[in-house]
Amino acid sequence: MTSTPPLMPEHPALTTDTSMLTRRFGKEVINYFAGSRLNRYSFLRSDAPFLQKAATSPAARFVALDNLSPLVVDKKKLALLSFDDVKSLIGEEPYRQSDADRIKGYDSTAGPSVLIVFLGTVDNEGDVEFESSEHGKAKGQPYFAIDVTAKGRQDVERWLKGQEAKGLWVATDTRSLTLHSEAAAMFAQARSILDWNSRNVFCAGCGNPNLSVEAGYKRICPPTDLKRSSSSSVELPDCPTRHGVSNICFPRTDPTMIAAVVSADGQRMLLGRQSRWPPYWHSTLAGFLEPGESVEEAVRREVWEEAGVKVGRVVVHSTQPWPYPSSLMIGAIAQAVPGAGEEINLNDKELESAKWFTMEEVRTALAQNTGSMMAPPPKEYKDGDLRVPPPQAIANRLMTAVVEGYLTGNAKI
Amino acid sequence: MTSTPPLMPEHPALTTDTSMLTRRFGKEVINYFAGSRLNRYSFLRSDAPFLQKAATSPAARFVALDNLSPLVVDKKKLALLSFDDVKSLIGEEPYRQSDADRIKGYDSTAGPSVLIVFLGTVDNEGDVEFESSEHGKAKGQPYFAIDVTAKGRQDVERWLKGQEAKGLWVATDTRSLTLHSEAAAMFAQARSILDWNSRNVFCAGCGNPNLSVEAGYKRICPPTDLKRSSSSSVELPDCPTRHGVSNICFPRTDPTMIAAVVSADGQRMLLGRQSRWPPYWHSTLAGFLEPGESVEEAVRREVWEEAGVKVGRVVVHSTQPWPYPSSLMIGAIAQAVPGAGEEINLNDKELESAKWFTMEEVRTALAQNTGSMMAPPPKEYKDGDLRVPPPQAIANRLMTAVVEGYLTGNAKI
Repeated sequence: MTSTPPLMPEHPALTTDTSMLTRRFGKEVINYFAGSRLNRYSFLRSDAPFLQKAATSPAARFVALDNLSPLVVDKKKLALLSFDDVKSLIGEEPYRQSDADRIKGYDSTAGPSVLIVFLGTVDNEGDVEFESSEHGKAKGQPYFAIDVTAKGRQDVERWLKGQEAKGLWVATDTRSLTLHSEAAAMFAQARSILDWNSRNVFCAGCGNPNLSVEAGYKRICPPTDLKRSSSSSVELPDCPTRHGVSNICFPRTDPTMIAAVVSADGQRMLLGRQSRWPPYWHSTLAGFLEPGESVEEAVRREVWEEAGVKVGRVVVHSTQPWPYPSSLMIGAIAQAVPGAGEEINLNDKELESAKWFTMEEVRTALAQNTGSMMAPPPKEYKDGDLRVPPPQAIANRLMTAVVEGYLTGNAKI
Repeated sequence: MTSTPPLMPEHPALTTDTSMLTRRFGKEVINYFAGSRLNRYSFLRSDAPFLQKAATSPAARFVALDNLSPLVVDKKKLALLSFDDVKSLIGEEPYRQSDADRIKGYDSTAGPSVLIVFLGTVDNEGDVEFESSEHGKAKGQPYFAIDVTAKGRQDVERWLKGQEAKGLWVATDTRSLTLHSEAAAMFAQARSILDWNSRNVFCAGCGNPNLSVEAGYKRICPPTDLKRSSSSSVELPDCPTRHGVSNICFPRTDPTMIAAVVSADGQRMLLGRQSRWPPYWHSTLAGFLEPGESVEEAVRREVWEEAGVKVGRVVVHSTQPWPYPSSLMIGAIAQAVPGAGEEINLNDKELESAKWFTMEEVRTALAQNTGSMMAPPPKEYKDGDLRVPPPQAIANRLMTAVVEGYLTGNAKI
């Protein structure tokens, strides 16, 4: 068992980036949860012989989630387990069967098994390589995630107790857990995929139980069920998901817009607050996208619905995966239309209030940030001053971009 | 019955836009399917008295979809029906019951009803206003979508025959149907929401049939079932979706990245082709986002998986809803890292080929575009020249942005 690799501040392709796009638009902002260096090798997820070699290799590392909370070491580093650490749970040959054989042998009466998700490989550990069946060699140290939610299973409970005895600990308050950039991204991927599998155990097209395949990235509705028989299987009723490609068989990601809205003159920023937040805490407006709308339209709709403000031009600044449960935060910077467009009106009554703040107020709040909502403000904080989310939240990055001159492209102020 | 309102080339908030964001980043590109002027009034979807007034008003307009294909007039305009045109299908009081009453009165043995979706209102028709229960007045002409897929229902079949007799027609080949910008957006919204409802008739959390509420934008798992009894209902087994907010109760949108990748020197563009496309047809690379990754990461992953090219800086250009069935195309412009990063290798073997084209080749192909894949090229086309998708596809808009100088911000070339 080893702990998380050291902090990797940005994607290697961007460390020395002086591209034309960077010259024009500035350096790419890598948000928290987006600092992954995992190569997902998505095209190897049906390659059982490759997965078997990768999972059982001494180089393999496993992250374990109990009820979607990660097992950690030293109370704040993601625990990276070896195959030996987990083989009592997943067996000596976790990928013995191909997906085709597992579908053919589907038996709804069989007991539950521990779900394993292939996360990908990280190529910084020397010469680790695995031969794939049809795609040549895959490079890098392989990482997997396993779901160790006990659900009454005694072997899983025993295993969790054993980990505790070794000093590992389930970090249930994941939202206040600050992980290194790479570990945060690995956790986000693991949590979202495990969550999707645990929420979608029945087929939404026909109501029958379904089966996780492709190393955790697909759930399909099996056409037959052995039902305890060792030889002859029963044909199951037809299901629409068995005809052509069905999106509901694949993991779901919910796009969400979040926008720093600037006044028409560029001098003020629109922020809102929910009644359950600490006093004076505000953030940028956000909301789920709906089918049939662009991000730009969603920003205009949500800002009008929540604050009554009419938005013109919308520019996407950066994006962030958010694993609660599986959102994609699409961070935008937008500008209100002049005049009546800037008047505030809480149309949908979702916010407690929405307000225009000066750039100076936002700049001070960003400088005085001390972390999560629960953390007290610093000494220099004056009661009544604006408080805003920490840098892990894309809201903070959007506000920072604006106060640093995003609208004009001028150097930092 | 009236036909679609005239073409509305861009969002009213942007017609005279000279904001700082526009000065720095250029005018916002409104992609096909994103030209909606509907105010969705999402916070009125549970307001049955409002919906009842809006749906039965003489101002109300209904678009009808049969198996997800729209009813059209003059063979290419979305048919906009009145309440009188559709009341034989949806009844005199389509919103007689509140959602709470419908859930309480849930009866799994009741026959199917025609699903109605509230699309929103368009505020260009004079003084149309409707009082809401808790949110003041909602302005504009109300639009709804109805699902007229017969599924053996004789009343629906008869109704469809009646429309045919009036000259209306179900446009089954929707992908080659070019609608005006606003009508396209309305169709996209209607198609995606109806499709989501029709694919998700069982609860993925417990396998029981579920119920469409909130004017088509939510499906919930009812806790009780009358089962033909008029008074006492049977309690249904517990379902995880009844505890807290569950994302699977809400419409799904699948974020998809699509990127025009430019070489490190800015002189060439990476395009790929699938074997089933017409000869010489190429497009920008695209792929679904996965849980736990940012758009920027997804672009780097997909471009490497499909073409072996290593991407550095990624900038989001514009987005587009794509209603087949419910994707959000996130259009990016990205730059390859120099040297070995530009070498092509079809890692996942999904594409038939991927190739670097000069800006001149792309410019010529854009100029020679004649529409869909099925349309023949123009006379001046020379066999072997590059062919690319039409302007309705965001791929075309991304290529156009690049050849017009997006990377440098200089005026059109």
